[in-house]
Amino acid sequence: MSLARKIVAEGIGTMVLLTAVVGSGIMGERLSGGNVAIALLANTLATGATLVAIILAFRGVSNAHFNPVVTMAVARQDRMRAAEIGGYISAQLAGAFAGVAAAHLMFGEPLFAASNHIRAGAAQMFSEFIATFGLLSIILGCSRSRPESVPFAVGAYVTGAYWFTASTSFANPAVTLARSFTNSFSGIRPADAPGFIAAEILGGFAATLLCSWLLPKEIAHGDT
Amino acid sequence: MSLARKIVAEGIGTMVLLTAVVGSGIMGERLSGGNVAIALLANTLATGATLVAIILAFRGVSNAHFNPVVTMAVARQDRMRAAEIGGYISAQLAGAFAGVAAAHLMFGEPLFAASNHIRAGAAQMFSEFIATFGLLSIILGCSRSRPESVPFAVGAYVTGAYWFTASTSFANPAVTLARSFTNSFSGIRPADAPGFIAAEILGGFAATLLCSWLLPKEIAHGDT
Amino acid sequence: MSLARKIVAEGIGTMVLLTAVVGSGIMGERLSGGNVAIALLANTLATGATLVAIILAFRGVSNAHFNPVVTMAVARQDRMRAAEIGGYISAQLAGAFAGVAAAHLMFGEPLFAASNHIRAGAAQMFSEFIATFGLLSIILGCSRSRPESVPFAVGAYVTGAYWFTASTSFANPAVTLARSFTNSFSGIRPADAPGFIAAEILGGFAATLLCSWLLPKEIAHGDT
Amino acid sequence: MSLARKIVAEGIGTMVLLTAVVGSGIMGERLSGGNVAIALLANTLATGATLVAIILAFRGVSNAHFNPVVTMAVARQDRMRAAEIGGYISAQLAGAFAGVAAAHLMFGEPLFAASNHIRAGAAQMFSEFIATFGLLSIILGCSRSRPESVPFAVGAYVTGAYWFTASTSFANPAVTLARSFTNSFSGIRPADAPGFIAAEILGGFAATLLCSWLLPKEIAHGDT
Repeated sequence: MSLARKIVAEGIGTMVLLTAVVGSGIMGERLSGGNVAIALLANTLATGATLVAIILAFRGVSNAHFNPVVTMAVARQDRMRAAEIGGYISAQLAGAFAGVAAAHLMFGEPLFAASNHIRAGAAQMFSEFIATFGLLSIILGCSRSRPESVPFAVGAYVTGAYWFTASTSFANPAVTLARSFTNSFSGIRPADAPGFIAAEILGGFAATLLCSWLLPKEIAHGDT
Repeated sequence: MSLARKIVAEGIGTMVLLTAVVGSGIMGERLSGGNVAIALLANTLATGATLVAIILAFRGVSNAHFNPVVTMAVARQDRMRAAEIGGYISAQLAGAFAGVAAAHLMFGEPLFAASNHIRAGAAQMFSEFIATFGLLSIILGCSRSRPESVPFAVGAYVTGAYWFTASTSFANPAVTLARSFTNSFSGIRPADAPGFIAAEILGGFAATLLCSWLLPKEIAHGDT
Repeated sequence: MSLARKIVAEGIGTMVLLTAVVGSGIMGERLSGGNVAIALLANTLATGATLVAIILAFRGVSNAHFNPVVTMAVARQDRMRAAEIGGYISAQLAGAFAGVAAAHLMFGEPLFAASNHIRAGAAQMFSEFIATFGLLSIILGCSRSRPESVPFAVGAYVTGAYWFTASTSFANPAVTLARSFTNSFSGIRPADAPGFIAAEILGGFAATLLCSWLLPKEIAHGDT
Repeated sequence: MSLARKIVAEGIGTMVLLTAVVGSGIMGERLSGGNVAIALLANTLATGATLVAIILAFRGVSNAHFNPVVTMAVARQDRMRAAEIGGYISAQLAGAFAGVAAAHLMFGEPLFAASNHIRAGAAQMFSEFIATFGLLSIILGCSRSRPESVPFAVGAYVTGAYWFTASTSFANPAVTLARSFTNSFSGIRPADAPGFIAAEILGGFAATLLCSWLLPKEIAHGDT
């Protein structure tokens, strides 16, 4: 599979992911009559289900990372080349912003708008650490023992983590950056994004350490 | 498998799909006490789950298109004969209208009634373009690399797209035409249907172009 | 697998099914503050999910019918002996009533109570015809082409049919009889049960006819 | 797979499970504006989905028990050594308390707080008996005939049992003990925990007896 195909798949998949997160957040907020739990249920259902669909569809092309922390963990484990790593992460960032713009166009919002949604403080950052630690543990655990279950495991985990973390589980630096440019339900103040991203990278790193001990490569069998 | 069997399977499957979309819309609206988000959650859950069930059940007979845009994309890729294409699309249209009538009979509504539900404007049409582009990308992506996952990927995608597109993702010309004859939650004004259908065909065409480059046939392996 | 084991599996599975239907109906009604759509969402989620679990668990023993109409359809197709048919249906009936009693015990209700819930009229009976026609089509369609998907297809179908039929899709004579003895959310007046049961048997018969033409045995391959 | 790895996997998996149960309960209660059914829907969705993800991810290491009753049933069936049993149950308990603390940290609550949530009486204890009887029947039934379906069956069962038991289905002594130290939506008064735990052990024992008759080992085939 050529690198160009992989990069396009990462870009389109991440675009659809962000369209799902931001679009369903706007739709949920508009229709739920002020009940935030109902809006978040809709946002959760749409995000988890869309993740299952896009990972199933694009896994055969790019392995469906859609997340720089996942790319960093896979790069460490499978020795991706620097050009490939750079291409993946650039495509994820470009796709994420395109997804926000697509959602805004559909719902009649300006293409990009800085968010006013405050998500600051130690508890929020700890939430992102836990969210990303969990996500990477799930991905690495499944990849090594039963890789065909990754799409379902990731969709299920994110469905849960939207509710069990105080930050609603961004768990993805590309997603975090792009969501700082939507002033809607799923947004995050640009000033709060760096703290989220730092916590996500740390959580991903901790999970990578744990899983290289927990699931040594020699005992793993899988097609990823 | 004879063409007659395939055509009947397409007709019955599309009938159940429309019964699910229209019937659960009516039930959701009647029970939700005016909270549109709750009605749409019910409509989403019923549609996504029913899609999984009918694609699993009828895939072995007709490949479970239930959608003229899917038939057009498959026809282009797998060289379906003209009679088969015509049979599939006719059956989808007939089934779609029968499904609307069945839902109306169950809920004590007139068999058919033109919808007053306005779904017009560029943002709505762009939504249908995105919805169908995504649906066809998911179907073509999964079909080439892991066809056994198509039923789950389609159900999951539509569950997400009901919420992340501003048009609630019709993404199907037969569905769009039939829904213009229900004056209930899921209806669309007959005058707005042609715009939806044009956007759906364009979205499907764009996804077909993308996927023929992204997933060249020689590298695809699958049973579809 | 001995007949005694099959009969016990049918009884316990149908018991858990009825406990799920009746218990989640009571819980949903008590907690939802009068919003019937929210109560039905909970009832739907619990019923669909429990069906997936019990069919997965007991399929290896009894083939997990849990429904006299399913037993009748399978008996016609696979030549079950009369003693086996009688044992299955008796176990389903006994299990169904035990499940209602278990739910009532957990929620502090009298063991059995005749329902006051009116579900009468042609539209309700037509709903049960459609519901059972669909259920049997899904089961027979999946059984012949991809039997390992039956648990997911049935759970998904019932999740949808709770919302897209006006009767909330009983689709099962044992379930219908047992639900006439709970005066709670999921009940049905004993006087209305015979009409439901007649419509269910007709719907199942129609689906059996359709599927024997649509999926002739010689082309079917499967492990059921 | 070394015992140390299994114990760590049990600890981390049970930690994530408790974080999901307690965290999503807090989030659900805070956002649902007093509608308990909506809070429980969120709690249910998050718990069921997280269970699917963590069982998929850790099954290859420790077989993903996350529950002393499951460990006891497996120990009886597969002759686990005493050191292994002790290690599993200790890890589950430690992980459960760590999970409660993690949820409290994320949501700005004190690390541990005794619960005031009364869950007493015969009906509640009968509920826990039924809940655990069902859970173990599902696990043992699937393990012997189709072990690859266990993660989905367990997630689906718990999703249903949250609603169809009057106790919301703790079904796990480690979970019960840990939840007595959260004074939030999912808590249980410490005084009520022993009754729950006794009922859970009895329910698990009854299911083990049933399944050793229903699914004799010589006819079972599976990879667990």
